[in-house]
Amino acid sequence: MDCEVLAIGTELLLGQVVDSNSAWIGQQLALAGISSHYQAKVGDNHDRIVAALRGALGRADAVVCCGGLGPTQDDITREAIAEVMGVGLRRDPEVEAALRERFRGRDVPAMNWKQADVPEGASFITASVGTAPGLVCPVKDPAGGPGKEKVVYAVPGVPAEMREMVGGFVVPDLVRRSGDHATIRSRFLRVWGVPESRVAEIVAPRLSELEGTGTTIAFLANVAEGVRVRVTTRTSGPSAEAEAERTLDKEEAELRALLGDAVGGIDDESLEVVVASLLGEAGLRLAVAESLTGGLVGARLTSVPGASGWFAGGLVSYGSDVKRELLGVDEGPVVSEDAARRMAAGVARLLGADIGLSLTGVAGPEPQDGQPVGTVFVGLSWPPSAAVEALRLSGDRQLVRERAATYALDLLRHMLLERTATRTS
Amino acid sequence: MDCEVLAIGTELLLGQVVDSNSAWIGQQLALAGISSHYQAKVGDNHDRIVAALRGALGRADAVVCCGGLGPTQDDITREAIAEVMGVGLRRDPEVEAALRERFRGRDVPAMNWKQADVPEGASFITASVGTAPGLVCPVKDPAGGPGKEKVVYAVPGVPAEMREMVGGFVVPDLVRRSGDHATIRSRFLRVWGVPESRVAEIVAPRLSELEGTGTTIAFLANVAEGVRVRVTTRTSGPSAEAEAERTLDKEEAELRALLGDAVGGIDDESLEVVVASLLGEAGLRLAVAESLTGGLVGARLTSVPGASGWFAGGLVSYGSDVKRELLGVDEGPVVSEDAARRMAAGVARLLGADIGLSLTGVAGPEPQDGQPVGTVFVGLSWPPSAAVEALRLSGDRQLVRERAATYALDLLRHMLLERTATRTS
Repeated sequence: MDCEVLAIGTELLLGQVVDSNSAWIGQQLALAGISSHYQAKVGDNHDRIVAALRGALGRADAVVCCGGLGPTQDDITREAIAEVMGVGLRRDPEVEAALRERFRGRDVPAMNWKQADVPEGASFITASVGTAPGLVCPVKDPAGGPGKEKVVYAVPGVPAEMREMVGGFVVPDLVRRSGDHATIRSRFLRVWGVPESRVAEIVAPRLSELEGTGTTIAFLANVAEGVRVRVTTRTSGPSAEAEAERTLDKEEAELRALLGDAVGGIDDESLEVVVASLLGEAGLRLAVAESLTGGLVGARLTSVPGASGWFAGGLVSYGSDVKRELLGVDEGPVVSEDAARRMAAGVARLLGADIGLSLTGVAGPEPQDGQPVGTVFVGLSWPPSAAVEALRLSGDRQLVRERAATYALDLLRHMLLERTATRTS
Repeated sequence: MDCEVLAIGTELLLGQVVDSNSAWIGQQLALAGISSHYQAKVGDNHDRIVAALRGALGRADAVVCCGGLGPTQDDITREAIAEVMGVGLRRDPEVEAALRERFRGRDVPAMNWKQADVPEGASFITASVGTAPGLVCPVKDPAGGPGKEKVVYAVPGVPAEMREMVGGFVVPDLVRRSGDHATIRSRFLRVWGVPESRVAEIVAPRLSELEGTGTTIAFLANVAEGVRVRVTTRTSGPSAEAEAERTLDKEEAELRALLGDAVGGIDDESLEVVVASLLGEAGLRLAVAESLTGGLVGARLTSVPGASGWFAGGLVSYGSDVKRELLGVDEGPVVSEDAARRMAAGVARLLGADIGLSLTGVAGPEPQDGQPVGTVFVGLSWPPSAAVEALRLSGDRQLVRERAATYALDLLRHMLLERTATRTS
C-alpha cells in the first residue's frame, strides 16, 4: 500500500503558511506501515489540482488531499476530485440539515452550502472538531482490471480537524484496504529539564545495542514539550501487536533505568498532565503567581480537564505594585530570589492553596532591575518547605517565557515526586 | 518564468523533519515575481528523484532541488541530476583542493570526496556558510527548439546554507534568465469576530470586480489569529514595486470600506498588538479575570513587549471561592452574566486598573452550573460603561478556550475604538 499526500493551497506555495500537515500525515502513515514516496503542494487552481491528482493516482494506491474544503471561492478540492472521478457533484440532505443545525436558526451563509456537496459515488467523513466534513472518493484504477480501485481522501487543512480525520478514519481505512499485518509501533518517553544533547549522550549505549534489531531510537525536542525519546519497532505475523507492545515495554524499562526521574511521562502525557495527576493523587491545591509568563503556566495547567479539583487559581502580577500589595513583595527589585520566594508564599495565602508556585524574571527585549534578558527566578512554597531556583535562559521573549513555564512546572513535578515518596516510605 | 521546488530527503516524507525550506523558497520566488505552481517532496531514492525531476522539467522552466548534497550514502542528488542531463560526473580539482584546505592536513574522510563531483556541463555555486557547494545544471528542453534550455539548481537542505545560496545566487540568476521585472506583493487584512464564510460573502463583490486584473483575494482562517484576507498583486516594469504598493493601498481601502471595524490589523499585527497600542495611546491600564481560559488572555497580552505600561495584571479565578472572596461574585452560579459583570469590576478594583475584562464559562468536557459546554460570558467594566456578552462557542476544550480568549480581546478592541472615537469627536 502506497499513499501520497497532496497539500492544496496557494498560501503554501507562496510560503505564507508552512505545510506541516503533510509531515504529520507522513508520520502517521509510517507508523501504520504504509509507504509514502511522494508528497506535493499545489495552489488553488482547478486544472493543476486535477493534474496533480492524476499524477499521484498514476503512481500510488491512495492519495490524501489536505485543504480546499472550506466554504470560500478558493476552496475547489471537491470539484477537482469530481473531475478526476469523471462524475458530478450531488448535494447531501444530511449535511444540509447539519449545517442548518449549526447555524441555529440564523441564515446559513450562501457559500456554506457547498460544504454539503459531494462527488457522486463518494461518501463523507464526519467531523466532530470542526465544521467541514471530509470525503472518501473511490477512483477506478486506469491501469487496473475490473474491480480494481484506488481511493482519494479529502480532509480539511485546519490541523486539528485534519488530525482527527486522518488519525480516526483515513489511516485505519488504509490499513484495512492494505490487508497487511505488519505493524509499526512507537512509544515516546517524555523528558524535561535535561537538554537534548545530554539525553542523546545518556542513551547512546542503548542505541548501539539495538542496531540491526528492528527497533530504533530517535530524539525530538521542542521548547514547550521537552525532549521526546521515540522508540519505534516493526513486527509482523498474527501476534504482531502483542509482540510490539512487549518490545516497547522492555525498551521503556531499559531507558528508564538510564534516565531515571528525568522521564516524566509517556506518549501524550504532557508536563501539565503529570503535575495534575500528582496533585490530584496527593489531594493538594496549587496557586500560581506569574510575572514574566503572564498567564502561560495557568493556561497550561487549566488545559487539563478537571483542573478545578487541584488548581485554586493564579495571580498575574505584572505590575510591581500588584506584587507588593497583594503578594507582600518588599520594596526593591522584583526580579530577585527574595521576590520569587514572597510571591510563592503570598499567592498560596491569597488564594488559600497548599502550594504556591511563582515566576519572576526578564523576558526582554530590555533588561530590568539590572538583570539581563533570560534571568528568571522560580519560587516554590509548600510549608514547611520552600525553594527558589535561579535560571539563565536563552532565546527571544517568547522562548524565554515558554522555557520559564516549562522549568517551573518541572520543578513542581520533582518536588511532588520527592515529597510523595517521603510520605509513602 | 515558472520554477518548481523539489525537497529531497526520506526524513521529510516520514515527517521527522517539517519541510520549511520550500515555503521559504516559495516566498523568495514570489517576491521576485517568479511563479511556482508545484512543489514536491521525495525520498532518498535514485529512480524516484529522477522521475520527480523529469516531471518538474516537463511543466516548469526551472527546478530548485533542496537537500541530498551531503557526504553520506543517502546523498544522491548529484547522480540523479546527471542522469536527467544524460551526462556523467566529473571530479572538480578546485573543489578537491578546497576540501583539502578545509580539513587542514587531516585526512579528508573518503565519503567527502563526492562533494567535489559535478555533472558534466554543470557548475558550482560556492558556499560561504556551510560546506557543500551547490550546483547549476543546464538541461536541454525536451520540447524546445535549438538553443532552448531549462535549468536545475541543487542547494543543501541545511536552512542557513540553502538560504544563502537561494537568496544570493538562485533567485538573481532566475530573474536574469526571465528577463522580466515582475514582482508579486501581498498584504494581509486581519479580521476578528466575523466567521470566515461571512467575510468571504462580504468581500465577494470585490472578488468578481478583480477578476483578470492580476490582483487576487484569498482567505486564511485560524482560531487564535482570526481571518486573514490576503490581497496579492503582480506587477512588472521598471516601477513595479511602487505600482504594487499603490495597488495594495487602493485595495486595502476598498476592503476596509466593505468590512469596516472588523478589520483590526495589517500583516503581522495580532489582536493583542492592536489592543496594546489602543490601550497605550489612551494611557489606560487593564486587568483581566480569567476562569475558563486559565491565563490564556494574560499570556497573549504579555507576549507584547512593554506590556507593563498598560497591563496591571490578572487573576486566574479558577476556584469558585476565589471568585467570591477576591472578586465579590455572589453565591449562585459562577457561569452567568452576573458573575462575569462582577468579575470584571472586581478585578479592576483589586488590581487598581481602569478597565476590567473577565471570562467565565464552560470549556468542557463536562457541563457546569446547568450550562452546556461552550457557554461563555465575557464581561467588560470601564466606568461608567459596563457590558457583558454571552457566547455559545463550538469545539473541544482547547478550541472553546482559544475562541473565548479571541472574542474577549476583540470585544475589548471594539470598546476601545468606540470610546476613543467618542473622546476625539
